[in-house]
Amino acid sequence: MAGIPRIGIDAMGGDHGPTVVAEGVVQALREQPGRFTVTLVGDEGEIRAALARAGADGRPIEVVHTSGQVDMGEKAAAAARRRTTTSIGVVTQLHKEGKVDAIFSAGNTGAVVATALLGLGRLESVSRPGLAVFMPNLAGGTVVLDVGANAECKPNYLVQFAHMGSVYARYLLGRENPRVGLLSIGEEETKGNDLVFEAGDLLRRARHLNFIGNVEGRDIFKGTCDVVVTDGFTGNVLLKTGEGVATLLIDIMRREIRSDPLAVFGTLFMRPALRRLKKHMDWEEHGAAPLLGVDGVCFIGHGSSGPKAFKSALRTIAAFVEQRVNDHIREEIEADHDTAA
Amino acid sequence: MAGIPRIGIDAMGGDHGPTVVAEGVVQALREQPGRFTVTLVGDEGEIRAALARAGADGRPIEVVHTSGQVDMGEKAAAAARRRTTTSIGVVTQLHKEGKVDAIFSAGNTGAVVATALLGLGRLESVSRPGLAVFMPNLAGGTVVLDVGANAECKPNYLVQFAHMGSVYARYLLGRENPRVGLLSIGEEETKGNDLVFEAGDLLRRARHLNFIGNVEGRDIFKGTCDVVVTDGFTGNVLLKTGEGVATLLIDIMRREIRSDPLAVFGTLFMRPALRRLKKHMDWEEHGAAPLLGVDGVCFIGHGSSGPKAFKSALRTIAAFVEQRVNDHIREEIEADHDTAA
Repeated sequence: MAGIPRIGIDAMGGDHGPTVVAEGVVQALREQPGRFTVTLVGDEGEIRAALARAGADGRPIEVVHTSGQVDMGEKAAAAARRRTTTSIGVVTQLHKEGKVDAIFSAGNTGAVVATALLGLGRLESVSRPGLAVFMPNLAGGTVVLDVGANAECKPNYLVQFAHMGSVYARYLLGRENPRVGLLSIGEEETKGNDLVFEAGDLLRRARHLNFIGNVEGRDIFKGTCDVVVTDGFTGNVLLKTGEGVATLLIDIMRREIRSDPLAVFGTLFMRPALRRLKKHMDWEEHGAAPLLGVDGVCFIGHGSSGPKAFKSALRTIAAFVEQRVNDHIREEIEADHDTAA
Repeated sequence: MAGIPRIGIDAMGGDHGPTVVAEGVVQALREQPGRFTVTLVGDEGEIRAALARAGADGRPIEVVHTSGQVDMGEKAAAAARRRTTTSIGVVTQLHKEGKVDAIFSAGNTGAVVATALLGLGRLESVSRPGLAVFMPNLAGGTVVLDVGANAECKPNYLVQFAHMGSVYARYLLGRENPRVGLLSIGEEETKGNDLVFEAGDLLRRARHLNFIGNVEGRDIFKGTCDVVVTDGFTGNVLLKTGEGVATLLIDIMRREIRSDPLAVFGTLFMRPALRRLKKHMDWEEHGAAPLLGVDGVCFIGHGSSGPKAFKSALRTIAAFVEQRVNDHIREEIEADHDTAA
């Protein structure tokens, strides 16, 4: 890549379509002019109208038309088969052809993963790409992967996830020597399932990793390590459980406060504190999840991403391209060839 | 069993030892005199002193002395080998000999599970007992199992968990036709891992279950079903992730409020609402987790159980004995013999 990062975006992905995408892109380019250029893929008429409403005039934004799009409920395999015409598929193809340096979609996660795997392939040294999320905590946050790309994993995939997560934590989160934990059901090496036992053996032998041992679900929210690796089934359950608990707590709090006039009065004094609480727990602040290990740069956003999420995703994606994260992943895995490959 | 339930308690289990156990037992017997009798097992001197402080005089409480106890950090297998002298082991033996009708410990969960499995054995129709927890939500709560007794599971274990969880939901939570969900990473039958695919096939064929299909982690906190089944590895991760997120949210809230004098003032008006919030999220209100499928009645409490947790556990255990839950489990699994056995 020469010059500034060129980011391709599936403009039809996400619950709100091109309107929100255009707003996010325009805000991001206004804040950091010259940091990146954008190519929006999808229904050209809708996109151009959304760009006009968002005041995009004069910004470095291209539009590539395609009429197909993937439904949020569509099965991943079916969506991947239609990839020559879907907005996810066409933006992936642009990346494959070198016309953009990275892609982003807030569409159907399964469909984006399947389309990117088929369209981009994987880095030579990587057996299975993994979807990584950043989970906020009071220690600055932890990267967890895989959260859903591979429901079944072999032990060496988890070692590769550890390398990829470490590189991500080092180059994008500024953690010098990222501590890696293996998700299990107790800290002792004797606790876990067969996958954990075998992956733990490999991780302990890996020379280029700062492996701190087994960790539990709650450690992620205490921030005792920078990277947590697990299979995509367990990681996905963890992700959705976290979402579920947070949503429930906030719902209960709202309900209890609403049903009590005195409490409603009390919240008047708490607005700034509650606003900061929201900011802490707000995944929009943390942007998008990278599919690490594909031969390219692919980020996936939450379906309900608003303009702020798009904006913060674009910043992260530009940094990922600039930092040449994939080159570092390749180097790391090859350096630990006997355990990771 | 004839007469009122006789409950054996590991008085040395839990972070606070006999003091808290004695307080909980005395409070429970004061509120429901004649509902059950109690046998406390552990260091007799400590227990008698704690009972005196708690005002136990005249209550139906026996004490059985043993000097051994299990450390919270001790490995399960090691603790189980010492079971002839540990408080967990001796109370289990009393149950085996028919001297009590049920046992309760707030000690080291792994050690209690291992000791109970060895000491009591399993119900004839059950391949693997499972640890069940009640998770609170706005729909009245969901029973989730297994949360840690079996890190590796075969598909038919999950069918047995479904039967045991349904019986528990029916007889102890009053759910008439409990809806059972299989924990996966999407609602579609095509999503999941091999265990989920095979268990799903069996669950769909089970005639005596109200199986509603695959559910996700967040469904538990929405309350879309009464029982959720999963393997003990995933279930344990789910449990600890839930705890971790709830703790983090509450910590952040506290920190934000404390750092802001206006917000501290605001909370004065919110005390009743916050108290109700706490009550909702308070596992102490929900007592203890049954190890379903052992040939006996064994409940396990959280290490930090206070008197309220002991009190609420005793009520639940008495109901479990009175409702003859194990007889119903046996009947249910035998009725669905072709899928569950």
